[in-house]
Amino acid sequence: MGKWEDNVRRVVPYTPGEQPKKAHMIKLNTNENPYPPAPEAAEVLKSFDASDLRRYPDPAAQDLICGIADFYHVKSEQVFAGVGSDDVLAMIFLTFFNSGRPVLFPDITYSFYDVWAKMLRIPYETVPLDADFRIQSEDYNRPCGGVIFPNPNAPTGELLPLASIEAVIRQNPDVIVVVDEAYIDFGGESALPLIEKYDNLLVVQTFSKSRALAGSRIGYAFGAPKLIRYLNDVKYSFNSYTMDRVTIEVGAAAIKNRAYFEETIKKIVATREWTKEELRKLGFVFGDSKSNFIFAAHPKIPAEELFEALKEADIYVRHFTEPERIRNYLRITIGTDAEMQELISFLKQYGKDRRLC
Amino acid sequence: MGKWEDNVRRVVPYTPGEQPKKAHMIKLNTNENPYPPAPEAAEVLKSFDASDLRRYPDPAAQDLICGIADFYHVKSEQVFAGVGSDDVLAMIFLTFFNSGRPVLFPDITYSFYDVWAKMLRIPYETVPLDADFRIQSEDYNRPCGGVIFPNPNAPTGELLPLASIEAVIRQNPDVIVVVDEAYIDFGGESALPLIEKYDNLLVVQTFSKSRALAGSRIGYAFGAPKLIRYLNDVKYSFNSYTMDRVTIEVGAAAIKNRAYFEETIKKIVATREWTKEELRKLGFVFGDSKSNFIFAAHPKIPAEELFEALKEADIYVRHFTEPERIRNYLRITIGTDAEMQELISFLKQYGKDRRLC
Repeated sequence: MGKWEDNVRRVVPYTPGEQPKKAHMIKLNTNENPYPPAPEAAEVLKSFDASDLRRYPDPAAQDLICGIADFYHVKSEQVFAGVGSDDVLAMIFLTFFNSGRPVLFPDITYSFYDVWAKMLRIPYETVPLDADFRIQSEDYNRPCGGVIFPNPNAPTGELLPLASIEAVIRQNPDVIVVVDEAYIDFGGESALPLIEKYDNLLVVQTFSKSRALAGSRIGYAFGAPKLIRYLNDVKYSFNSYTMDRVTIEVGAAAIKNRAYFEETIKKIVATREWTKEELRKLGFVFGDSKSNFIFAAHPKIPAEELFEALKEADIYVRHFTEPERIRNYLRITIGTDAEMQELISFLKQYGKDRRLC
Repeated sequence: MGKWEDNVRRVVPYTPGEQPKKAHMIKLNTNENPYPPAPEAAEVLKSFDASDLRRYPDPAAQDLICGIADFYHVKSEQVFAGVGSDDVLAMIFLTFFNSGRPVLFPDITYSFYDVWAKMLRIPYETVPLDADFRIQSEDYNRPCGGVIFPNPNAPTGELLPLASIEAVIRQNPDVIVVVDEAYIDFGGESALPLIEKYDNLLVVQTFSKSRALAGSRIGYAFGAPKLIRYLNDVKYSFNSYTMDRVTIEVGAAAIKNRAYFEETIKKIVATREWTKEELRKLGFVFGDSKSNFIFAAHPKIPAEELFEALKEADIYVRHFTEPERIRNYLRITIGTDAEMQELISFLKQYGKDRRLC
């Protein structure tokens, strides 16, 4: 071992959900969209002139940025884009969380937040959710270095009303508040309008869930033009050309199709509500998820047992062993109607066999 | 202004070369390849099933990693991939340059190194090139936090022989030495074989120049498996899914075509050598570039004047105003034969008009 190992940044990385490569499986473990992206994505791929790939992409990704700005009726100066919302969030941590005070986020939340904080040596404190897995805005009313939470929260699916979000922003005028809206399109109210009112707010969204483009890696943030400029300065100090040519055009084309987007969401929400009913009949308990997943526990069947049984049947869901409080829950992504029917049939049979439900 | 501005990471970002969007121009300013990528890239785009984009990509980008490993006859555990070599280099700075001692790099070099160091608050010192713009390995024989240099160097095109590189590595067993080989395929000898001998060496390459895929954003590093593991831990703590599905497949397919790769390079090298001859006849001075650009000065025509005159004629080259020593040089990318003939014709006429050459 060389002495160079003393100066390695040692980290415990985030563990993404399994990506099994089986031909026949029901994959409900990474909150992907069960439907294909808007047909415009396929058209871009088919018509893309590969010889253009010899040129660097537009470092400002203007086609994509303008597409996002148009869709959401904001100015392009209020939009930042990156390689998935993880890239956007990492850039936000790097750019804005530089005080000596701890950044605050929920104790049960997206498990990447503490990974970024540790990697970038940012102090942080987790704020416990209440007994119903809900964020209480008054818990974020104290000196801190920034605030970040997903809305709806992950992996619980619980939605925080806009009034509570505004309370968190008002309580923290001296730091940046980040609302991570990866799942907002499935029934939540976005904090986007608040960026006109508060210059310390960033709203982060992604093409990975509601727009069925997880494989393209497109995330974005909305904020006051000054915030976006600071973010871009850091981005251009890290990697000038983060978005490749194909992705920029795929994203720019796909976001134009509002009707397809709305229709896909409508289908997923309908399937989610049907799945909730069926799970309830089987005795599962869960909150009123407004995301594309359900976070459910069964009082009589340990989550780990069920997780393994499902896996055995080639049905993949997500099970978190930490923190302790969520160990008996499974996070089940909403798939197609057929996939969810198969899941429910399996669970019915499983309960019958064990005389549990 | 909110108090939050006190905690913003303020940086002066790297300035990439201009990306003008003119239909008719000769673009010799960003070291792009004048030929299209291997035809396999187009085939991937044509046959790609867009509905696969709803799924996350393989976080390990195995198809691409294995393609690179196969081409270079190394193990996949010795390969790291990222969103262009800028992403790979940023990850290397973050992972390995964490001592209190300064990282060393040449005073005239890729202008992103000091940007990364400043952004990540890494101490650094620049080491002057000699009078002929050459790196002297003995100048890197002193306590430091790491060493990085491009080979061939940018923007000079000067190649450091392998024996000198090995001397730098031997002199610095306690820190990581990074050889940034963005331009190595155009006539240099890669330090790649040395990774078997030294566990403190990283060799970084890119698909952006010799493989004509700047628009796809693919960079990679070779090193001992332990180094690659440390890099991956940090990468997975920053963004698990950096490489999108299309890019992984485009890269994996394109690298298979060794004949096309070698043929393209042969053409560019022949054009470079022809351009050198012509520039010499016109009185330009320059080193023996082994890259896909020539870094040239004219004793009688100020570089800035020529840069503007060329731009006026829609011929884009690169002019660096800093550091002082290179202010009279232009970096001219090697284009097609026709493009270089047009450049030379322009320069001939320009000299004649001003009775300078």
